[in-house]
Amino acid sequence: MIDYEALFKITYGLYVVCSGSKERGNGYVSNTVFQVTSEPPHFATCCHKENHTAGLIRDSGVFSVSVLHMDTGPDTIGTFGYKSGSDTDKLKGMQIRYGETGVPIVLNDTIAYMEFRVTETIDVGTHLMFIGKLVHSEILDDDAEPLTYQYYRKVKKGFAPKNAPTYIDRSKLVKPGPAREYAKYQCPSCGYIYDEKEEGSRFEELPDNWVCPVCGEVKSEFIKL
Amino acid sequence: MIDYEALFKITYGLYVVCSGSKERGNGYVSNTVFQVTSEPPHFATCCHKENHTAGLIRDSGVFSVSVLHMDTGPDTIGTFGYKSGSDTDKLKGMQIRYGETGVPIVLNDTIAYMEFRVTETIDVGTHLMFIGKLVHSEILDDDAEPLTYQYYRKVKKGFAPKNAPTYIDRSKLVKPGPAREYAKYQCPSCGYIYDEKEEGSRFEELPDNWVCPVCGEVKSEFIKL
Repeated sequence: MIDYEALFKITYGLYVVCSGSKERGNGYVSNTVFQVTSEPPHFATCCHKENHTAGLIRDSGVFSVSVLHMDTGPDTIGTFGYKSGSDTDKLKGMQIRYGETGVPIVLNDTIAYMEFRVTETIDVGTHLMFIGKLVHSEILDDDAEPLTYQYYRKVKKGFAPKNAPTYIDRSKLVKPGPAREYAKYQCPSCGYIYDEKEEGSRFEELPDNWVCPVCGEVKSEFIKL
Repeated sequence: MIDYEALFKITYGLYVVCSGSKERGNGYVSNTVFQVTSEPPHFATCCHKENHTAGLIRDSGVFSVSVLHMDTGPDTIGTFGYKSGSDTDKLKGMQIRYGETGVPIVLNDTIAYMEFRVTETIDVGTHLMFIGKLVHSEILDDDAEPLTYQYYRKVKKGFAPKNAPTYIDRSKLVKPGPAREYAKYQCPSCGYIYDEKEEGSRFEELPDNWVCPVCGEVKSEFIKL
């Protein structure tokens, strides 16, 4: 028996993983970045095979990791987490630095970053796991706390997008209970739909400072469908 | 240029990873446990090749992960994190449950646990990465917060043991500064030595509620050597 709620007890941070070059770059929000050996330091990250960035990491052999701070705005997560690099230039308008390897590094909402050269690519099913040797790391803001996935879920009411390794079909989380009517609420700015049935909790129960996880629109502007 | 302090901005939890059977079992403290694919859920964990548990996971093909709660006592971390299964029966005297696969599961200080069958073993240098398919998961305490590596480091003043993927030679963390004398302080209960030079901060600067990371002895009992 699998209790999917138990999976939320695993602790993760939230990062923007970037790859490519000055000519063509892309990034996505990842919560699976972790050190796999200490000497010399190697890290791993998992990327859905359909992610645009997966192809860039394979082609360029380099990737960067930007550690997001706790107060990361919805712009950064909306752009890198919920849009596709196939139809958007996600790096356009962002603060980008190019590393020693030429890889783009996102500086928006970033407290530290790391740059890697891929040493191994492992097929783990729906995802590819890239293992990279650390070539450069730097702290940009030593006082800010890093954003954790738990904080993003609990306080910011965000969910992992469909291509994340930790994506959970929300119907698996809804405990059996008395029948009740669910409603949907739409963001007037970006069209994002908050589906009470899918989210497992009522729109009214969200805190007043809740904002659209995609574009940051305030809760009070949402329209009941 | 690598700034090793930047590596501490990556977020991890803290877990006891166990393997073996009723006859012969062992476990170690790990901070690298993470989901690698969502459907079906697979997780990965890294284990130093010299760890006693690495051999048990290879032989049995199963492992369990116990998520520790924030107020985990020094007994659990001291036993599983700083002792070797080669010369100690770490499971003796602990609360153990045996899972569907027969794997031992540590229940001490545990808020949730998961049980896995190994699907792949990857050699990543000094460590082995075991990828396992989730076969069972359960929450034991839904109110307690999970222990994070950051909390363990900052509040409990603990460091990763030498075999951890995130182990950092502390001399790499000490910033250049004026020469000063370092002292050592010994725990009268377990013999653990707090070395100011190695830790990078003075014993007096530790908070009053700091305790021995191995056995939990209070700070005021430590003896200056």
